[in-house]
Amino acid sequence: MNLPQPIIQLTEELAKLPGIGKKTAKRLAFAILFKADEEAEALSKAIKNAKEHIKTCRNCFSFSDDEICQICSDPKRNQEIICVVEDPRNVFTIESTSIFTGVYHVLQGAISPLQGISPDKLRISELEQRVANGGVKELILSTNSTLEGEATAHYLVNVFKGRVDKISRIARGMPAGADLEFADSNTLARAFEGRTDFND
Amino acid sequence: MNLPQPIIQLTEELAKLPGIGKKTAKRLAFAILFKADEEAEALSKAIKNAKEHIKTCRNCFSFSDDEICQICSDPKRNQEIICVVEDPRNVFTIESTSIFTGVYHVLQGAISPLQGISPDKLRISELEQRVANGGVKELILSTNSTLEGEATAHYLVNVFKGRVDKISRIARGMPAGADLEFADSNTLARAFEGRTDFND
Repeated sequence: MNLPQPIIQLTEELAKLPGIGKKTAKRLAFAILFKADEEAEALSKAIKNAKEHIKTCRNCFSFSDDEICQICSDPKRNQEIICVVEDPRNVFTIESTSIFTGVYHVLQGAISPLQGISPDKLRISELEQRVANGGVKELILSTNSTLEGEATAHYLVNVFKGRVDKISRIARGMPAGADLEFADSNTLARAFEGRTDFND
Repeated sequence: MNLPQPIIQLTEELAKLPGIGKKTAKRLAFAILFKADEEAEALSKAIKNAKEHIKTCRNCFSFSDDEICQICSDPKRNQEIICVVEDPRNVFTIESTSIFTGVYHVLQGAISPLQGISPDKLRISELEQRVANGGVKELILSTNSTLEGEATAHYLVNVFKGRVDKISRIARGMPAGADLEFADSNTLARAFEGRTDFND
């Protein structure tokens, strides 16, 4: 005897999420079944709503609920400093430290020959366009401290050297090989403060 | 600056699930945003579908996609032996061992004075009705090996003594204080084989 089909289906969909194994998925499926109807519907709708309303900012390529994200359209943000990250999640992680008052540019990945990700697959030409439009003084390269992140940072230095006043890399306050997502606020804050200048 | 509202909402809904903290919820929310539209919709629909189509079996009070569940309506199952459990999840956990060929009765909880769960809040009168209808020879009390589970088993012994040929309790193959959900198949199988007779 198997579980009723709708439970199997829900368990399978939940198990597709990262870090959710078969047993956890089953546990979550039953937790959803035990919920009140309106609570389960709220979860179902939140998924649908997020997918429908979250777009990519046309300027920085982070997640946004508008054509241009809140950060890019905020007159209080310093448009002269662009923090370059791999992933939209990194924007929100850095924002949670409140240490950075400039704007962002999301590459949507990092150079990885093994995974077939070449520089032209990243949002680099769009960053070149933003720099060409003028007013950008500094690029803070905040790609991950992984092999791919470092390679991407070095590639960007070669592309943008001479085109902006300053190119910096966030300090290795983080352990080598670590992902930006797993850094705590203090480590990230130190990494921002101790950023090193590529032009030195 | 905060996350866009639809992401906050999704994160909050995910964080309401048991064992999902704030950080995991955020990770899952982004994983859902990174999914293809049809994959995210499949998850959203699976939640909705499960809530809409899963009902409680009118006979045994387990989860079912029909008025009467597959186990209760299966002519190959031995209707003379009823395995009494606290929770619909327990049914599926026991089913996964394939050791039991009788039918179930889900109490939908256990007696717990601290949580205000008295015997009349459980599906005990419905079990009395099933026994009164005749044909039931044995009750296997498979409530958890917790204080509440043991108390419920003892309460049921007093209620059903003399009304059925045999009342048994699954053996303490499981460590005391453990929840039925976390037992492995072998432990559960041994617990079924070594069940002790209350009438002895």
